[in-house]
Amino acid sequence: MATTELLRQVFEDRRPTVTAISPGFAEAVDAMEAFVLRGGKRVRPTFAWAGYRAAGPARTLPDEMLTVCAALELVQACALIHDDIIDRSDTRRGHPTIHRQFEEGHRAAGWLGAADHYGEGAAILLGDLALAWADDLLAGAGFAPDVFGQVTPVWSGMRTEVLAGQLLDIRTEASGDESPAAAHRVMRFKTAAYTVERPLQLGAVIGGGDDALVDALRSFGTDIGVAFQLRDDLLGVFGDPSVTGKPAGDDLLAGKRTALLAAALDFADTNDPVAAQKLRDGIGHDLGPADLAEITGIIENSGAVQAVEQQIDGLVDSALTTLAASNATPAAKSELTDLATAMTRRQT
Amino acid sequence: MATTELLRQVFEDRRPTVTAISPGFAEAVDAMEAFVLRGGKRVRPTFAWAGYRAAGPARTLPDEMLTVCAALELVQACALIHDDIIDRSDTRRGHPTIHRQFEEGHRAAGWLGAADHYGEGAAILLGDLALAWADDLLAGAGFAPDVFGQVTPVWSGMRTEVLAGQLLDIRTEASGDESPAAAHRVMRFKTAAYTVERPLQLGAVIGGGDDALVDALRSFGTDIGVAFQLRDDLLGVFGDPSVTGKPAGDDLLAGKRTALLAAALDFADTNDPVAAQKLRDGIGHDLGPADLAEITGIIENSGAVQAVEQQIDGLVDSALTTLAASNATPAAKSELTDLATAMTRRQT
Repeated sequence: MATTELLRQVFEDRRPTVTAISPGFAEAVDAMEAFVLRGGKRVRPTFAWAGYRAAGPARTLPDEMLTVCAALELVQACALIHDDIIDRSDTRRGHPTIHRQFEEGHRAAGWLGAADHYGEGAAILLGDLALAWADDLLAGAGFAPDVFGQVTPVWSGMRTEVLAGQLLDIRTEASGDESPAAAHRVMRFKTAAYTVERPLQLGAVIGGGDDALVDALRSFGTDIGVAFQLRDDLLGVFGDPSVTGKPAGDDLLAGKRTALLAAALDFADTNDPVAAQKLRDGIGHDLGPADLAEITGIIENSGAVQAVEQQIDGLVDSALTTLAASNATPAAKSELTDLATAMTRRQT
Repeated sequence: MATTELLRQVFEDRRPTVTAISPGFAEAVDAMEAFVLRGGKRVRPTFAWAGYRAAGPARTLPDEMLTVCAALELVQACALIHDDIIDRSDTRRGHPTIHRQFEEGHRAAGWLGAADHYGEGAAILLGDLALAWADDLLAGAGFAPDVFGQVTPVWSGMRTEVLAGQLLDIRTEASGDESPAAAHRVMRFKTAAYTVERPLQLGAVIGGGDDALVDALRSFGTDIGVAFQLRDDLLGVFGDPSVTGKPAGDDLLAGKRTALLAAALDFADTNDPVAAQKLRDGIGHDLGPADLAEITGIIENSGAVQAVEQQIDGLVDSALTTLAASNATPAAKSELTDLATAMTRRQT
């Protein structure tokens, strides 16, 4: 895939500088490179490219767009590396997370001090490096000054929003905020703006799309991004572990303050206060299978699942209506329709 | 001071966006703003401005330069906020560090989960935000395209080097690497390049300095930056707590792998192996006053102090000779000579 090839080139280009600083630094950068090249679904580049194609007839991906796609993946590397510290995650993409990897290296070498703290320190710094390099790529992408002036506010908004979303996420979880509004804000900024809306906007702006197209794609992106997260919330409780690759009830055990949970508590408070209390008491604890099944059942019977499914349907309808009425190219409309469906109807 | 005023404006300009996202996010940004405005010595803006003045007759600071100065302080905010997590520091600039501040807030509110982990998470994300905003400022500074093309490689080098220096710092400490080369690499990248060399270069490039001037200032900056760190190492062991504001022998207790320590071990290994062993055994432990006095004495008697003082003299001489022979403006030569002396002869 083109983005991965460019990312490989980015690391290749920087290798002489990195190695000249020190082999120890090069070793750390190698870990980041492996993480980035291993890749994920490259969702943000996919939407950026779709936004670009929406603005005009399909062309080959110009260098500036390709660079933006690579930069998006480096921002994502920072987000994941730092998120994994915050969530205390051990694995990511089937491998140990970066902080665990450095912790293991410390332990294997029999180094001094606390191995886990060393791992976190190294991961904080490598995440910073990924973020700095993302910005270097954007600044050096070779944009014409007028296009660069249009791109930077979108890029700025995206990075601020995802960090705001992450801050609100840990704050909502810590404060035990049960309000649907709090869950919605996290979805809006941490997921929808960062994953769909802003990448689409970046592509559309670079492709020379007019204001009407940009507005339509942003609206589409917000709807689909929120619907995507709602689907994720459902899978986090009801997903089949053999398909999702995550433990059953993962979100419940982790104590995630999702919109699904907020809705379930809201319904149960009215209809079954005893069940509501059980749900409240169980969330975020290391539940055994019987307790987990019980609180999963409470969510299922609360009416929240249908409500969330209806929200997803409404958001997808709204997104597709906006898209259909927009001046996006037919090829992009078809591609975005497929993406919208895949992201909101998936089972993993 | 001009940089602080601009920083105040940066936060002011972003307040509507931040508040629109959520009051909870605004509260977190307020903590970052207070941290940034409280300021430190603004060393990097001072050198950037000196580099700018070195390139031409004194002028008022143009907007692009001022923006770069503010951006440098936001990079520094990220570096300090993240470093304080890594170093487990409780206070910074006379206030609780950012991670401790959020930890305290969590505890005071009686929130769920581990308060210290929450504090670290919030501080990781706020440091990221400072770094992202630094890049936003640079991208939006309004440089002419040719100047921007000259500025970005310097900016990129600076951020990569400081992160490399920090990674090498924790690695050197964890691995117990005693080599002078390892200590030198950390000084070179974490301190000299980041604090003096690159800011001077940024200013000179923006001021239109020619290659000869840029080369001279970089050489001056590397020498003075390393000499500054060597002075810091001496103060970290022998500094008067009533003047430095830090505990006596702070670096020894923390186990910092400084060039001073590397030199002391090197001398003692040859001249007094028993003392060398005591020094090795004592470093990084919570020593009582008597043990601390003993290992401080070992360093003092090893010959390392004179050796480091000689290195400082040699570096300052080299820097001032380079500066004198350069085509910097007389005003900048005088200013940089004063700065070089102040930074390497200081007692705090």
